[in-house]
Amino acid sequence: MNKSALLIIDVQKGFDNPAWGSRNNPDAESNIARLLSTWRSKGLPVIHVKHCSISPKSPLHPDQPGNAFKDEVWPEAGEPEFSKTVNSVFIGTGLEDYLHEQKLSSLTIVGLTTDHCVSTSTRMAANLGFEVTLISDATATFEREGPGGKMFSAETMHDINLASLNDEFCVVKTTDQVLDLLNA
Amino acid sequence: MNKSALLIIDVQKGFDNPAWGSRNNPDAESNIARLLSTWRSKGLPVIHVKHCSISPKSPLHPDQPGNAFKDEVWPEAGEPEFSKTVNSVFIGTGLEDYLHEQKLSSLTIVGLTTDHCVSTSTRMAANLGFEVTLISDATATFEREGPGGKMFSAETMHDINLASLNDEFCVVKTTDQVLDLLNA
Repeated sequence: MNKSALLIIDVQKGFDNPAWGSRNNPDAESNIARLLSTWRSKGLPVIHVKHCSISPKSPLHPDQPGNAFKDEVWPEAGEPEFSKTVNSVFIGTGLEDYLHEQKLSSLTIVGLTTDHCVSTSTRMAANLGFEVTLISDATATFEREGPGGKMFSAETMHDINLASLNDEFCVVKTTDQVLDLLNA
Repeated sequence: MNKSALLIIDVQKGFDNPAWGSRNNPDAESNIARLLSTWRSKGLPVIHVKHCSISPKSPLHPDQPGNAFKDEVWPEAGEPEFSKTVNSVFIGTGLEDYLHEQKLSSLTIVGLTTDHCVSTSTRMAANLGFEVTLISDATATFEREGPGGKMFSAETMHDINLASLNDEFCVVKTTDQVLDLLNA
């Protein structure tokens, strides 16, 4: 944990747009802020990732105000930022090379959304050989519609996606568990 | 659909090992066989992927009998086979280069398991720019344990994971819908 980089994925204002539907875990941003504060105070590596949608209509398009990082995760000088146009933080970003250059082999992943960009990035990180800790209460997602038209709640999407990732691609921990380890 | 390669992921005998727990959709293999038969009869591209676990204890390790393809998907002469050691079919396999060489930009994905290798491969295929159709009743998964110890049924894991993939990474269709399109 003491060498793990905090990878903050897509914590952007555009996710407050009501078009996304109902969300779970409104505490995700405050938990991410607690983790970020601790990472900074201990001089541990922090990496910011921003989604720059190529769809002009998306609230996350670079021309939209929603593309901006939320206040809770605003990068400080010197903290690296990577931009992406797809779900995975490892496609088209140079992040894999950066991690190898910095000799960072362990990631602590937080951000939005659990089942899209966070899950995809967690899976690819693990498959590329990185050790991943995923923070369950520092991520969140939205309700989704299944292929047959059935709606599933954000909480269900979140919980089941964590179960798919758990022990196959990552270790899942809570914010408090990680802060307790770091402050032990 | 007429140019889409049928990508058959990890349909191997080792998945019959009871250690995996309860599975959903026992018809997955027969549906895959129906798709494969039609793909072959129409001379459409078929690609086989085998998981070769690096864990000696895994039923999918190359030294285990469970590493073998199931009878329903046994490759015919001339059909390409790719071996992988992680969930994604695109890491360490050369598959991306092969698809570009063959000018194949569309994939129809089937196989095991919905939420591990099928989901990871679908996500990465989409993020790499391939058009993906995922066949809901030609994939299956197992019950999983969430990070808090709660068990979730295979059917729940399957349905929720399809909802996460649907319209973000792929179009989800049934075997009959695809066969109807191909035979129209």
